[in-house]
Amino acid sequence: VTENLKIGIAGLGTVGAGVLKILGVSGDLIAQCCARAIDVVGICARDRARERGLGLAGAAWFDDAIALAKDPTIEVFIELIGGSDGVALDAVRTALAHGKHVVTANKALIALHGAELGALAEAQGVALNFEAAVAGGIPIIKALREGLSANRVSRVYGILNGTCNYILSDMEETGRSFDAVLKQAQELGYAESDPSFDIGGIDTAHKLAILASIAFGAQVDFSHVHIEGIEYISANDIIVARELGYAIKLLGLACRTDQGVEQRVHPCLVKSDDAIAAVNGVVNAVVVESDQLGRLVMEGAGAGESPTASAVIADIIDIARGLVLPPFLRPSEFLRSEAVAPMARHEGAYYIRLTAIDRPGVMAVIAEDLAHEGVSIDTIIQRGAERADSVPIILLTHQCRESVMVKALARISSHDVIVKPPRMIRIEQL
Amino acid sequence: VTENLKIGIAGLGTVGAGVLKILGVSGDLIAQCCARAIDVVGICARDRARERGLGLAGAAWFDDAIALAKDPTIEVFIELIGGSDGVALDAVRTALAHGKHVVTANKALIALHGAELGALAEAQGVALNFEAAVAGGIPIIKALREGLSANRVSRVYGILNGTCNYILSDMEETGRSFDAVLKQAQELGYAESDPSFDIGGIDTAHKLAILASIAFGAQVDFSHVHIEGIEYISANDIIVARELGYAIKLLGLACRTDQGVEQRVHPCLVKSDDAIAAVNGVVNAVVVESDQLGRLVMEGAGAGESPTASAVIADIIDIARGLVLPPFLRPSEFLRSEAVAPMARHEGAYYIRLTAIDRPGVMAVIAEDLAHEGVSIDTIIQRGAERADSVPIILLTHQCRESVMVKALARISSHDVIVKPPRMIRIEQL
Repeated sequence: VTENLKIGIAGLGTVGAGVLKILGVSGDLIAQCCARAIDVVGICARDRARERGLGLAGAAWFDDAIALAKDPTIEVFIELIGGSDGVALDAVRTALAHGKHVVTANKALIALHGAELGALAEAQGVALNFEAAVAGGIPIIKALREGLSANRVSRVYGILNGTCNYILSDMEETGRSFDAVLKQAQELGYAESDPSFDIGGIDTAHKLAILASIAFGAQVDFSHVHIEGIEYISANDIIVARELGYAIKLLGLACRTDQGVEQRVHPCLVKSDDAIAAVNGVVNAVVVESDQLGRLVMEGAGAGESPTASAVIADIIDIARGLVLPPFLRPSEFLRSEAVAPMARHEGAYYIRLTAIDRPGVMAVIAEDLAHEGVSIDTIIQRGAERADSVPIILLTHQCRESVMVKALARISSHDVIVKPPRMIRIEQL
Repeated sequence: VTENLKIGIAGLGTVGAGVLKILGVSGDLIAQCCARAIDVVGICARDRARERGLGLAGAAWFDDAIALAKDPTIEVFIELIGGSDGVALDAVRTALAHGKHVVTANKALIALHGAELGALAEAQGVALNFEAAVAGGIPIIKALREGLSANRVSRVYGILNGTCNYILSDMEETGRSFDAVLKQAQELGYAESDPSFDIGGIDTAHKLAILASIAFGAQVDFSHVHIEGIEYISANDIIVARELGYAIKLLGLACRTDQGVEQRVHPCLVKSDDAIAAVNGVVNAVVVESDQLGRLVMEGAGAGESPTASAVIADIIDIARGLVLPPFLRPSEFLRSEAVAPMARHEGAYYIRLTAIDRPGVMAVIAEDLAHEGVSIDTIIQRGAERADSVPIILLTHQCRESVMVKALARISSHDVIVKPPRMIRIEQL
């Protein structure tokens, strides 16, 4: 008979409370499946006095996460404190150094310190599991690290942030502005009061860096991700894109190129009939393209108490069953520091939004600048004036190199007739 | 240092060849991820003389699968022979009885003998893995057995047979008849020369029985699955369904009801805007609905050499990593023999196709019969004659009990004006 698995939980926010609830309602099922029960023997949270209704009797209370992380009674340290540095980092380092398995939902921590922490876990022969850090309840880390582990991945991409997807979906559905929809999302609790990590693409980039590491055998390196947010997407962009047969989605996308691994997070025009265009609201979706399996799509709840807690529990169950894997699939010694494919050499088609003074000859100037740089135009749309004296002009280009596109836009911007900085949205071939 | 994992492969058809190819091209990656290499030390196939170009040097040849299954040199027996009984069953029983781990892609074997074989594997402390048996390369067994193992599943359903989905998709796209599309599918290699297992729904039912067992903690029991095939779906059914906002798909669907577990395979009308309606061609998709995670969708290649072989390899990798789980998630002692929810008590809406003589009063007769049984009509479509003297009539009903619907159809059929047996397709709320 195997003994119960003794765990300590640091952080009793939404996810921590969810973990305790699942252990309460499904403890019997978990014990059956693992042939051992899971015991919460230690708890650490900010406010001991707060009534949580979670029945914490039986668990020792710790005021200090570091003390919990090294307490001899626990075998697994569950880090649900959050933040890429500070206490979360110190506590995880301490737990690993003391030979404890670690489970975390902290994407920022893993994106920024995963290489160090992964190597430490391996050296100690313990697990560092972070299923909940990427795409919430969707078991994508398990799929990549186990189900697809004999596949060579060529591309992985997805909708990894529910807040951004909710905002873009709602803008498409209602035609309202970014600001109006963001305000409502905050009221509904789908966006934080400081939404900059979400709408700025940082959260997506954290998750992408983790996926890319496992998919491409690269050391996780957040600084390798090119990041743009959705703040500049206008209601009109979404309307025009739809008319042209596209939806606008914030994607995280990593692929292997001749230049190295490309990791980028930015709004994309995707074909309206592509499955990813139909992923609306707070749902997440991840697509993995690999040599043996072809295309695998996983779609589900990317956030929320229960889905995230479900992923944390799955990580704990793996440990209870004795499964200890290298955190990033390949052992650290085999993880390479991959070359970063520079965005300047990215090849793609572009959606360009210009705002110009409504005057004869404007189109000729734009067309001439594009021709001068060798950018070929696929579609031009000019219509109704924003203000009496200026008009939005939308261009879709054919495939070209990004450095060329950027030069062409700089050239166009230099004319007095262009009254706002041009905006460029990449068109993604999925 | 852990020693190499020694495996024996019985059956060198498409999947067996695929497994050897992946071990060839990705052996280094696999060895990294498992911290040990996988060695093929024994091979058994029908025709030794056949040139396969697979480089089988180093592996001992066995003419007899049973002999390979009990050979002391192997630790894992890979069953790729096929067939629910005969050699495949004998060899798997032998391997398990001799304490070997078993990996199989054989859905019929697991659907029909999984309860016995699973219990045997557990008693011996070895793995019985069958990821490739359900939805080809999609890691759905892993998701259910590991990623979602703390979830209580309420419903699992999906498109589990690529042949049927190809035929139905092609009928919808081209408007051609079932027979014409089947013939072409056979020519293209998407359907077997004897396609009855696929188009009759048997193959889907094998897979569903396996999914249902893991999802609901029930002993796998193929006889509990209600099965209907797609043979009677006409081009006109698909056209009319589309006009009404539906696609026709062959689904395998299992859910928990007050009556017990309902397991059924049959063509369904699904809303055209549901994600499952957009799954076309040979692609498979599985949807799992559970208490914590909500709705998880997995979509990918459900068949073919590489995807299926990829799943077999993933199963072998789990064993190489030391992961041995109860085959059906819960240990055999906890698997219940669930009550079968009778189809007669199924509640749903129905698509009904009648063929009637074109004569005044026909509609009144039909409407009266339905009213008599208490079936309420949602939509009636009558149009263009099939033959000069008969017309197809399509009805959509509101929700009713299946036994009531069946009685109403029997009543309608009894009239001379009804010239063909009525056809009933269930409308599925997804």
